[in-house]
Amino acid sequence: MRAARRHLKGARSVYIACHIMPDGDAIGSLLGLGLALRQLGKHCTMACDDPAPLKFDFLAGFEDIVAQPPDAEDVIVTVDCSDTERLGALFDAQRFARRVVINIDHHVTNVRFGDVNVVTDLPSTAETVYALIRPMGVEITADIASALLTGLVTDTRCFRTGNVATKQLKTAIALINAGASLTEITELVFNREPIAKICLWGQALANVQTRGSIIWTEVDRQMIRKCGASPDEGGGLVSFLASAMGVDVALVFREQDDGRIEASMRAGPGMDVASVALQFGGGGHPRAAGCTVAGELPDVRERVLAAIEEAIRQREISAP
Amino acid sequence: MRAARRHLKGARSVYIACHIMPDGDAIGSLLGLGLALRQLGKHCTMACDDPAPLKFDFLAGFEDIVAQPPDAEDVIVTVDCSDTERLGALFDAQRFARRVVINIDHHVTNVRFGDVNVVTDLPSTAETVYALIRPMGVEITADIASALLTGLVTDTRCFRTGNVATKQLKTAIALINAGASLTEITELVFNREPIAKICLWGQALANVQTRGSIIWTEVDRQMIRKCGASPDEGGGLVSFLASAMGVDVALVFREQDDGRIEASMRAGPGMDVASVALQFGGGGHPRAAGCTVAGELPDVRERVLAAIEEAIRQREISAP
Repeated sequence: MRAARRHLKGARSVYIACHIMPDGDAIGSLLGLGLALRQLGKHCTMACDDPAPLKFDFLAGFEDIVAQPPDAEDVIVTVDCSDTERLGALFDAQRFARRVVINIDHHVTNVRFGDVNVVTDLPSTAETVYALIRPMGVEITADIASALLTGLVTDTRCFRTGNVATKQLKTAIALINAGASLTEITELVFNREPIAKICLWGQALANVQTRGSIIWTEVDRQMIRKCGASPDEGGGLVSFLASAMGVDVALVFREQDDGRIEASMRAGPGMDVASVALQFGGGGHPRAAGCTVAGELPDVRERVLAAIEEAIRQREISAP
Repeated sequence: MRAARRHLKGARSVYIACHIMPDGDAIGSLLGLGLALRQLGKHCTMACDDPAPLKFDFLAGFEDIVAQPPDAEDVIVTVDCSDTERLGALFDAQRFARRVVINIDHHVTNVRFGDVNVVTDLPSTAETVYALIRPMGVEITADIASALLTGLVTDTRCFRTGNVATKQLKTAIALINAGASLTEITELVFNREPIAKICLWGQALANVQTRGSIIWTEVDRQMIRKCGASPDEGGGLVSFLASAMGVDVALVFREQDDGRIEASMRAGPGMDVASVALQFGGGGHPRAAGCTVAGELPDVRERVLAAIEEAIRQREISAP
């Protein structure tokens, strides 16, 4: 982290980008770091190739997020991106090669593409940003605290994930004491789902299937159209499926606009779906991973399920 | 609380009961208090008129929960019950009249039926039990801490409800430090849903309806049968509906085995559905309440919806 702090302190202008289809940890980390660096007098560009979901519009700096690639900034920072593909069209190989790139992330599959890599095993990138900026003399204002707490509660589904310990609760208390409102954030982040999403869940849950200890469902373009849903509104579905008793792995196969199939995976304790996602060019965490695969839905589904069945078999063989 | 502590200290035997269709706060409070009193050398009966949900079987004392009414115990304690009807067949008016009854709860609609009433505005009854037993010289063992943390995370949906503040996070840290595992509890409490429940959600969400800012769905006995679900597996549905954007009130109407209709309600900030539930003989909290009404589903639905529309109108008139 020291090298990252040194580069940031020395920079007059910083370009920060988060990943496409941004979630609360991507946006919260982007804004939390951006506001902190602005407080230190840096000129700061905050970028995302996809529009930030409107439910984060309560965060300070939200309006400043742009979809433009780096320009002449001294330093480039990426947040919550395990590889440069996650930047979408913001990745510009030439510019990235010419600047110091600081890669701030918490994904185990992070490929360390930065000149400086700040990759932790914390439950959220927002906590990584918090650990980075605190010793830099940044005053944690209510705006910065709100952005970081939004990241923390998003990636831990409000402290429900298996990697949460007292450290996360203490960080939350510190951010609340700095002015963030946990109540407001959970209300705005978890309680403003479009009705189209509820429709999509109804469609998807009506066709849940199981094979051994695998549970999955499929969301095709027709269902998305019928509900007037946006592509990312199947988001929480896979976590819901993973809550079923006796399930080792839950998946949602979603047909994207470009016809490719996105597979989101969640695994029970002791399973590693990140390795399966990696086989298909994706990534993530051992218990929450994803990939996007070209092909027809039934074909992709069978290939991914076969890889998962193999992973379950391997675990059974290697278990004591 | 002092009177309650005095009675409990003086008792040799204590009968504790929680409400029918028990949730994690009912079971956690029951076991947390029961284990604490046993540690103090009391003979302790822990009772519930309905079977405790199996997902709480990891809690110490779970096997000791019985469905028998009070016998010759010195003191009767009820936990998480706003009135004696919530005790089901465990309520025995004569025995309750002859003993000291301590009513430990956190529902705003609690009717203060005890000789001693310990009714707080804390987010969970488990926290109320914790506040009660700490000054009694009880060592908060890992078993007691696990029971109480289960209550806390259940009733706050893991710190997501609007009444959560740093106090709850600090209590959680104290209980974790005493040996409770937040990870294990959230895994076991939130991630062991029967597949029948997922089926039931699919059925129910396929028929979501809206009227103004009210959203609701209906679960009839045919749907419950089709999915092989138990009656309480529509539980989280109403919270999910309440997460829809622009919704003031969410409801789930569920046909019970006896043909009566249970209406579960959730409200957005500033609304009070407890008052609506009270009109129909139910109760709860301003933002989470319920009632059970005799009649056919369409008729009950229209009566309850009319009362809610009136409550929304009243709020609009009284708003500044």
